[in-house]
Amino acid sequence: MADSAHPVLAVLGRGVVDPTAPVARADDPGLTRGDGCFEGCRLLDGVVDNLDAHLSRMARSCAALGIAFDAGAWRPLIDEAVTAWARPGEAAVKLLITRGAADDRSAGFVMISALSREYARLRRDGLRVVTLPRGLGPDVFTDAPWLLGGVKTLAYAVNMAAQREAERRGAHDALFVATDGTVLESSTGTAVWAVGRTLHTTPTGATGILAGTTQQRLFERAAAAGWTTAESLATVDDLHAADVLWLVSSVRGPIDVVELDGASRTRNAGVDAEIRRLAGF
Amino acid sequence: MADSAHPVLAVLGRGVVDPTAPVARADDPGLTRGDGCFEGCRLLDGVVDNLDAHLSRMARSCAALGIAFDAGAWRPLIDEAVTAWARPGEAAVKLLITRGAADDRSAGFVMISALSREYARLRRDGLRVVTLPRGLGPDVFTDAPWLLGGVKTLAYAVNMAAQREAERRGAHDALFVATDGTVLESSTGTAVWAVGRTLHTTPTGATGILAGTTQQRLFERAAAAGWTTAESLATVDDLHAADVLWLVSSVRGPIDVVELDGASRTRNAGVDAEIRRLAGF
Repeated sequence: MADSAHPVLAVLGRGVVDPTAPVARADDPGLTRGDGCFEGCRLLDGVVDNLDAHLSRMARSCAALGIAFDAGAWRPLIDEAVTAWARPGEAAVKLLITRGAADDRSAGFVMISALSREYARLRRDGLRVVTLPRGLGPDVFTDAPWLLGGVKTLAYAVNMAAQREAERRGAHDALFVATDGTVLESSTGTAVWAVGRTLHTTPTGATGILAGTTQQRLFERAAAAGWTTAESLATVDDLHAADVLWLVSSVRGPIDVVELDGASRTRNAGVDAEIRRLAGF
Repeated sequence: MADSAHPVLAVLGRGVVDPTAPVARADDPGLTRGDGCFEGCRLLDGVVDNLDAHLSRMARSCAALGIAFDAGAWRPLIDEAVTAWARPGEAAVKLLITRGAADDRSAGFVMISALSREYARLRRDGLRVVTLPRGLGPDVFTDAPWLLGGVKTLAYAVNMAAQREAERRGAHDALFVATDGTVLESSTGTAVWAVGRTLHTTPTGATGILAGTTQQRLFERAAAAGWTTAESLATVDDLHAADVLWLVSSVRGPIDVVELDGASRTRNAGVDAEIRRLAGF
């Protein structure tokens, strides 16, 4: 059984290794250019949740980047890492692939680590969120594949800087807004909001946002449970007016927003519990 | 003397190491998020060209990211790498720093490698360039430090994808354009254009573009040589109308554009030679 503070690292082609050992070359464009992609998944009692959807999205990201991806080589590596983790309950699983240096193959890693201790508190108390301009125009990703819309690249420096800005403002997360005022996605998750018995989320495609694996599963199950689901372009005012607003990530699940840009939001424990359950959390 | 195909790698706190050895941890945000920054410099006969300007810009990038940077620790590391390279003529020097994993210090690397063989041909024949929308609105970087304008982060996946798109279109480089038609910068360098005896470049700041170290030195020397210099917001049509257009990088120097979006440009050998010389190339 792994030490509680000791993550597991498995390297494609090598298997489980010391998680503190360096594994990436200094000339790998994954490091020098953020040229690669990743997935963040939830491990629950030895099973990677929604793994097929994550591997499918990783295959799409790799295809957009022109990086070879062989899901058949990743599944046994993930199994090996999960076996080494060997602990019940929840954990975070990251899959990461780089382009690889010119004279080397792309590097692939599976990392399993304990959930942030903060998540239990966030799930209980809800999220404080600030909206931040993303600087991107609406519809700019249409016919512009070089902008890598919907591709979960390693180039997340702006997301991380927005996260730090949110924390500086006393919030937990940042929700990005396009130049026309359209809500996009948060620095680490998908926005979902309820108006009556309709669940909304921002459409992918022209907005460039990621297709959320947990949001998609939630919408499928919610539709089967009688909810109407919709892809909607919304403004921040629309979110203020919504009955419930969540940020949804694969590791944390849906967490309801209790404060948006400093304005408190009334929680709805019944709807929130239903949505978390439908999402598998 | 290093093998002609064998780069030099030096690691902060360790010195020169095998350049093919892995040196970055799988959980370093520099790898997982592009959360770090870099500089690309030119080595000429054992001297790193314009090193003070590069270290100053790296210090600014680190300050914007909240990463500690100690130029005093980098200079001896750079010296050690240059000594190990031990070859006359030109080479490319990359300085790279990451945020570092939570229980580890940030990682710092100096890499020296041979210039791409293509550069000699590009310098002789000029560049074919295509313009590509960057999706960013004008002025979006004003009062939005989380967008990391002017910060040379590791999150260059879009730049690399634009470079690949340019190559797919038979060009060498991509020049980014904002949503209002304003010319920004290329995927790897600064745009400079001449109209009569005035040299223009895009202003930094609200545009989010990098302050070009070689462009700045060029403008200082050009001003001293009698040129007028200006920071100008230009459209692609303005560039078509300019007498000479260059893309300027610290490693390649200024190279004149001979074709822009498929339209041939007349070369001006006299002005081009003067600008290259003023830039130190």
